Amino acid sequence: MLSIVLVGPGLVGNELLTQLTKNGKQHGIRVIAISNSKRMVLGTDLSDNFTLDSERDLYRIEEHAEKFKPCAFVDCTSNQDIANLYVQWLKKGFSVVTPNKKAFSSDLSLYSKILELTDRTLNPTAPFVRHEATVGAGLPIISTLTNLVKTGDKILKIEGIFSGTLSFIFNTFSDSNLKFSEIVKDAKSKGFTEPDPRDDLNGVDVARKTTILARLSGLKNTTLESFPTENIVPKELRNLNTVEFMERLPEFDEHFENLKLEAKKENKILRYVGVVDVSNQKCSVELKSFDKSHPFGGLKGSDNIIAFYTERFSPQPLIIQGAGAGKEVTAFGIYCDILSIL
Amino acid sequence: MLSIVLVGPGLVGNELLTQLTKNGKQHGIRVIAISNSKRMVLGTDLSDNFTLDSERDLYRIEEHAEKFKPCAFVDCTSNQDIANLYVQWLKKGFSVVTPNKKAFSSDLSLYSKILELTDRTLNPTAPFVRHEATVGAGLPIISTLTNLVKTGDKILKIEGIFSGTLSFIFNTFSDSNLKFSEIVKDAKSKGFTEPDPRDDLNGVDVARKTTILARLSGLKNTTLESFPTENIVPKELRNLNTVEFMERLPEFDEHFENLKLEAKKENKILRYVGVVDVSNQKCSVELKSFDKSHPFGGLKGSDNIIAFYTERFSPQPLIIQGAGAGKEVTAFGIYCDILSIL
Ligand SMILES: NC(=O)c1ccc[n+]([C@@H]2O[C@H](COP(=O)([O-])OP(=O)(O)OC[C@H]3O[C@@H](n4cnc5c(N)ncnc54)[C@H](OP(=O)(O)O)[C@@H]3O)[C@@H](O)[C@H]2O)c1
Ligand SMILES: NC(=O)c1ccc[n+]([C@@H]2O[C@H](COP(=O)([O-])OP(=O)(O)OC[C@H]3O[C@@H](n4cnc5c(N)ncnc54)[C@H](OP(=O)(O)O)[C@@H]3O)[C@@H](O)[C@H]2O)c1
Repeated sequence: MLSIVLVGPGLVGNELLTQLTKNGKQHGIRVIAISNSKRMVLGTDLSDNFTLDSERDLYRIEEHAEKFKPCAFVDCTSNQDIANLYVQWLKKGFSVVTPNKKAFSSDLSLYSKILELTDRTLNPTAPFVRHEATVGAGLPIISTLTNLVKTGDKILKIEGIFSGTLSFIFNTFSDSNLKFSEIVKDAKSKGFTEPDPRDDLNGVDVARKTTILARLSGLKNTTLESFPTENIVPKELRNLNTVEFMERLPEFDEHFENLKLEAKKENKILRYVGVVDVSNQKCSVELKSFDKSHPFGGLKGSDNIIAFYTERFSPQPLIIQGAGAGKEVTAFGIYCDILSIL
Repeated sequence: MLSIVLVGPGLVGNELLTQLTKNGKQHGIRVIAISNSKRMVLGTDLSDNFTLDSERDLYRIEEHAEKFKPCAFVDCTSNQDIANLYVQWLKKGFSVVTPNKKAFSSDLSLYSKILELTDRTLNPTAPFVRHEATVGAGLPIISTLTNLVKTGDKILKIEGIFSGTLSFIFNTFSDSNLKFSEIVKDAKSKGFTEPDPRDDLNGVDVARKTTILARLSGLKNTTLESFPTENIVPKELRNLNTVEFMERLPEFDEHFENLKLEAKKENKILRYVGVVDVSNQKCSVELKSFDKSHPFGGLKGSDNIIAFYTERFSPQPLIIQGAGAGKEVTAFGIYCDILSIL
């Protein structure tokens, strides 16, 4: 039996509710509270057919959850304030499950506090924190990395394409004759990018994911500031509004075309990757060129891919590949975390 | 805390002991008995530095394990008789962890008995059965498939290369100008094949793995006999001894060369795959040709690869790839299972 408090019934949160309503009961899962930033509903067995019928009161949610332990708080926001509440929840014995990257890629003190409160070697009945969907959505990336580390394998290097948007953009760029700006425009119009595509192109999201993987690999002091992140938005376009940015991006098509041609000369293609180089204790997020025959070279659509180079998986890495965004697969990743706590 | 009874301290079993001795204690894992087919040792905290000091007595092992519950029996044999004991162990409340394919790919009555005894919807304190390493060794294949099914995804098709040996043989065959028989001879001399390579080439091992995946995907009545398995050993060579087989294999180099050329005409390459076609409720194990740009086309060394086509992972499948044999990665898969029970 596990009770769930869902914070953030947005795109992913609602899909999770749909999946849980369909088949959560057979696993002994029940949803006992749902809350967005303003309103909430408390109950004993809520379904995806819910109404937020009262004003939000976090204290009342916790009080209510206290009566339904064991209980996990599922944070489906991308909010830093909610991430800051994990410590309080964990201290009260609630587990935390989330696709929200903030707690695992921001402040190191918050992160170490979370690790400490969930360390079962210190406290055999400590609650759990699980965040599979923070990297690669439903792909089994965090669980695999955690297992490799826990069982004593030595991680040498992790390399991957962690942004569905940048995957789509560069896969299309290398497989077609379209101009860079045309691809970005198309991706934006299809809803594949953030409302302002620069929020994808600046690499911050990939840097957050890289930070999460680095910390789990043993580079515990990694922060967003401790390694270089290549912002591929041309300097001249960084201080414009979104409309101006989109209008002026074609001025830089030649720049991107040249990068592509340079790579092509060596029979290579461009990919935007995050790298955790554990052996050399450094990380990077950058546009790199790869052989066409490299597993990253054959990527299609907006797939994510990750390669774990370890002492056991050597010389060939362990590779996981597939959709790394989308509400169905993200909710699936969260659901897996919930099952692992059960 | 979890106690382990290790049955079968061979290549994989010994490596597991090494991994557990190195870092099992921090997870509360202790080995309390080790047994091969003739001798055993009982203790309270055995390490990889063990001596089998008495004659084997399965009854005494169980009696001993009874005192150290919760306890898991880890079967690192490939023995059918040991697989037949799972029911007895599960009935006594012991969990079972194993890389041994027999219980999951043979008799349907044994399989359903195991499912029944580990069904936590029937009995919330039922013991566990885990067998990650039966397919793809340490690659997270069984756990991923189980999660997809448990969370209500619909599996449409699974396709993969599940034999490290056949992967090596056909990767080399498509990437080089070597003759088929030369590659088999080389693989045999490197210890990559079974002592008699026909035990790889007949496809039975791949058929077992395909059966395991089919049953987990919902095709519950699948047996080795219920679908076609392509035996690529030429008929004329099936009744010879190993030496004669190896001597006469070159007579069939032209046959394999022709298959290769036929595929090449369509810019394709040969791969020996297992297929679980859930939508059409049928399985197959066969030599198939794939586009060079297909993820199976770029495979290297003796890597395994698996593609899950599901309702959520669509149109692009979820792909997992890497070493699917070798004592280190196999023991890792078993260790992951042990952690998941903890
Ligand atoms: N979408 C994907 O494909 C994907 C993939 C991987 C990971 N993720 C992660 O999944 C999370 C959710 O993504 P999403 O696409 O579902 O976002 P979304 O549709 O914007 O939903 C966000 C939800 O969080 C709520 N919320 C915001 N601030 C809150 C607060 N302070 N307290 C309580 N609720 C609050 C929002 O409610 P209000 O209406 O009150 O603001 C809304 O219900 C994010 O962390 C995202 O990075 C998403
Ligand atoms: N090696 C790999 O890369 C790999 C990969 C994936 C899966 N696996 C699977 O892992 C398992 C072990 O493989 P392995 O390579 O370690 O084999 P192995 O080296 O031949 O070891 C087998 C062990 O099982 C013992 N054994 C045999 N029959 C027994 C019985 N009736 N009772 C108790 N012990 C018995 C043997 O001891 P005796 O000396 O007494 O016979 C030996 O210690 C197999 O199921 C295999 O299919 C292996």
